[in-house]
Amino acid sequence: MDSVFGPEPGKCKGYPGHEIAEMALVRLYDVTGDEKYLKLSKFFIDERGTRHKADYYDPNFVIGGEADGENANVDDMYRHDLYYFDLEDHPDQKIRGHEDEERHVYHQSNKPVRELTEAAGHAVRAVYLYSGMADVARLTDDEELYEACRRLWDNMVNKRMYITGGIGSTHVGEAFSFDYDLPNDTDYAETCASIGLVFFARRMLQISPDSRYADVMERALYNGALSGMALDGKSFFYVNPLEVNPKACALDERKKHVKPVRQKWFGCACCPPNIARLISSIGEYAYTESEDTLYIHQYIGADFTTGTGADISMKSSFPWEGDVSIAVRGVPEGYKLALRIPDWCLGTYEMTGADDMDKDMKHGYLYISGAWGEERKIDINFPMDIRLIASSDDVREDFGRVAVTRGPIVYCMEEQDNGAELYRLAVDSERFAAQSHVEMYDIGSVPCRIIYIPGVERCGYANTDLTIDIANSPRGKLETGRMSTQLYSDYKPLHSEPKTLKFIPYYMWANRGENEMSVWVDVK
Amino acid sequence: MDSVFGPEPGKCKGYPGHEIAEMALVRLYDVTGDEKYLKLSKFFIDERGTRHKADYYDPNFVIGGEADGENANVDDMYRHDLYYFDLEDHPDQKIRGHEDEERHVYHQSNKPVRELTEAAGHAVRAVYLYSGMADVARLTDDEELYEACRRLWDNMVNKRMYITGGIGSTHVGEAFSFDYDLPNDTDYAETCASIGLVFFARRMLQISPDSRYADVMERALYNGALSGMALDGKSFFYVNPLEVNPKACALDERKKHVKPVRQKWFGCACCPPNIARLISSIGEYAYTESEDTLYIHQYIGADFTTGTGADISMKSSFPWEGDVSIAVRGVPEGYKLALRIPDWCLGTYEMTGADDMDKDMKHGYLYISGAWGEERKIDINFPMDIRLIASSDDVREDFGRVAVTRGPIVYCMEEQDNGAELYRLAVDSERFAAQSHVEMYDIGSVPCRIIYIPGVERCGYANTDLTIDIANSPRGKLETGRMSTQLYSDYKPLHSEPKTLKFIPYYMWANRGENEMSVWVDVK
Repeated sequence: MDSVFGPEPGKCKGYPGHEIAEMALVRLYDVTGDEKYLKLSKFFIDERGTRHKADYYDPNFVIGGEADGENANVDDMYRHDLYYFDLEDHPDQKIRGHEDEERHVYHQSNKPVRELTEAAGHAVRAVYLYSGMADVARLTDDEELYEACRRLWDNMVNKRMYITGGIGSTHVGEAFSFDYDLPNDTDYAETCASIGLVFFARRMLQISPDSRYADVMERALYNGALSGMALDGKSFFYVNPLEVNPKACALDERKKHVKPVRQKWFGCACCPPNIARLISSIGEYAYTESEDTLYIHQYIGADFTTGTGADISMKSSFPWEGDVSIAVRGVPEGYKLALRIPDWCLGTYEMTGADDMDKDMKHGYLYISGAWGEERKIDINFPMDIRLIASSDDVREDFGRVAVTRGPIVYCMEEQDNGAELYRLAVDSERFAAQSHVEMYDIGSVPCRIIYIPGVERCGYANTDLTIDIANSPRGKLETGRMSTQLYSDYKPLHSEPKTLKFIPYYMWANRGENEMSVWVDVK
Repeated sequence: MDSVFGPEPGKCKGYPGHEIAEMALVRLYDVTGDEKYLKLSKFFIDERGTRHKADYYDPNFVIGGEADGENANVDDMYRHDLYYFDLEDHPDQKIRGHEDEERHVYHQSNKPVRELTEAAGHAVRAVYLYSGMADVARLTDDEELYEACRRLWDNMVNKRMYITGGIGSTHVGEAFSFDYDLPNDTDYAETCASIGLVFFARRMLQISPDSRYADVMERALYNGALSGMALDGKSFFYVNPLEVNPKACALDERKKHVKPVRQKWFGCACCPPNIARLISSIGEYAYTESEDTLYIHQYIGADFTTGTGADISMKSSFPWEGDVSIAVRGVPEGYKLALRIPDWCLGTYEMTGADDMDKDMKHGYLYISGAWGEERKIDINFPMDIRLIASSDDVREDFGRVAVTRGPIVYCMEEQDNGAELYRLAVDSERFAAQSHVEMYDIGSVPCRIIYIPGVERCGYANTDLTIDIANSPRGKLETGRMSTQLYSDYKPLHSEPKTLKFIPYYMWANRGENEMSVWVDVK
């Protein structure tokens, strides 16, 4: 790649159509120490979107193919997701119109990446690019590039992310759409996009340890990414909806991308190996280390040795209970343990075994330092309360509704547990605090925690009394209340019957066959 | 057409891809009395869908074109919306698969039309076909065909029709989707489809005068069809949504078919002339006449002479007020006036001038007969109360919501009158009866009635207190309530402020510029 692309005369001024080489080149640089890989990554990032103001497609270059006429060639480049711009060679070509603008947004090439302000275009490509940008920003101390990463992060997690850590609101281009547009039943939220969000979070943590990155990483890990795989590891979701009516998936062309059960494989099978890769490298996300600090981002059990030679052994009951036990041996004085305080515990936790240590809270991490002694065991409990979560008012689809969470887990209702027509159900917020409870449960022989919450089943206008057999009904002088359609009739207040609602972990949905599912639920 | 198509040997066994010839041939038969036109219409109807079990496309015939290879030809036939099947000539061709099944549903050719049970496929084509079927059923006393029309009518108006009389829930194929699938912001509800529904209703009325047809005709006329044209007659809607967020129309590929303001013209400009034709022939829909009865289906002012030589003069304040005055002169004894009692007045009305006449209520019509005298004036008032209407529970999109109607008019809220984010508003059902009122109003200098209804504006979680500048905030030992995203936070009950909601007639929406609109509104 380095022999073909680059800023030097004679080399192509191109960059990948589907970003990922940027990250890969940095990893290659990490392994080899050869700076040319880092430089090439930076070149791809700097070059991206720079020629947009007078852009066109060069018909004379396709990797792995020969030019065979302009149109065929452009198509071919798109088909292979490889294209580049070269202004100097063809200054007379016309600027293309709107369609190209959309294509550029899709490819994150509508502007130089430092000028991007919104998470946009194909969601997976976007977070792969942002991850590469963060890598390069970190390794080259590029403050401007880091600022772009922060802007894109903020826009994404504050305006364009599902509560599950899913991203990509529309199947059109598998893409981000616009601020606060978070439809639950037509979303895309590709498994790979949540995985890419985990990549991006880790890289932001490497630059600046701040729990807001690790909180979102956890959200995506346990929910939007993990839901991509069945409990038996044998089938997968590409698209991760937050609300499903299987009948609509089957009949509705607009929801054909939403599958009500996991699939064995896909034509473009990126998600299954991607989730396998993520899970098998989970340690890289749970822990990072600087010169004098071990960061614990995720409370995932592990035994390992730090760069300073200290032995760390962590056990936890995550994600089902909040107790964590960290045994350390041989930690040198001056070395710190930085424990992420998860946002969902709202700052309340209990800790034993570190009373004599110095503790400092910074950017959501509790830094513990002091005299470690030969051995030490620190026990912590992060309380996992059942919470009802609301969206920002700006999210139309969730207005007046809640999602149930506990610890890092987002919950959902399934038809199997609650009957069909889940939209009739509502949480009873007044009885919630007193009557909700957690139970142990098995789904597909996998133990988990499920949640029971007091609610109601609502029923409105009943059709039956208006189902008149027009031809045979006895008719009086005047018929009252006769409707020309059974669909519409005078409003009467909804009738509510108490019903206990059962919630299961979102990532476990559709493991008991095809049925309705919903994360968001009305509130009575 | 008769020389090319027909059951006779040597003639093509085809039928129109886009139905309408069926109706047109019956009109030609009406004018000319030549039975061959009626027979050809019946042939098109009887032939439709009969070859489906072993169907294929005949490559050797295209009207207005030459065969140039099978595939090109099939494409060409689709392009021209003309195709037909001819089993005998090509018994060896293979049965095509699923894609063709969808095409057949789109074209209402998946079954012989007498076997159809659901309103399906392209909505305009469908109601044009059903109209032709009703014509032929009436003229040939075909009870089986009439039963099919009734079945299709019932399915359509009881399960697949918007409260506006709009039909066609999806832009995919401009088509019906499935029972109770009535999304408000992605619907199609083509103007031509509501017009076609009016055609169908009139033809059903000709067979069997029943107000349920005229009620739906009125619904479609004053709402789903009329909304297709601007008040100044200079711009048009093809698609008639029941809820619009202009920002979403601009940014959301999934809603690109929904225009937030009427357009000057369309590439396929069927709707503008169709609505002009409907309005200029409105008398044919308002009144029909049998040998001894004048049916008044719609209370639209008119002066005319009946087949028996009676002079009829009707004035009314419809659709704004329910007073109607019918002056008759020279009505022979034995002749009846049949007045439709609209479903929205629930059987309550006041009538003067007919106390001495015989009155009989049948199928929603009040039949008046007796000694008419030389002249007579009958005054009626149908009370137009403000009503809150609910959908059947089965319509997920409208569950817990209401639409406002008064007389034949369906109302809506616009941003111009109620501010943006209409989804925050809710009708206060407890104060509704006491505090709602009607006012005279002008929209684009067109007088109308608007409705004020007591309601609330709701506000949930306010973002502001969580907008922490992470880098600069003073941080204590423990930060409480810190969130990693501003999108999601602990649920608090929605806060409601009283607000009077202003509703305008749905058909008048988007006559004051681009803005949000919604027919359905939450109920507090």
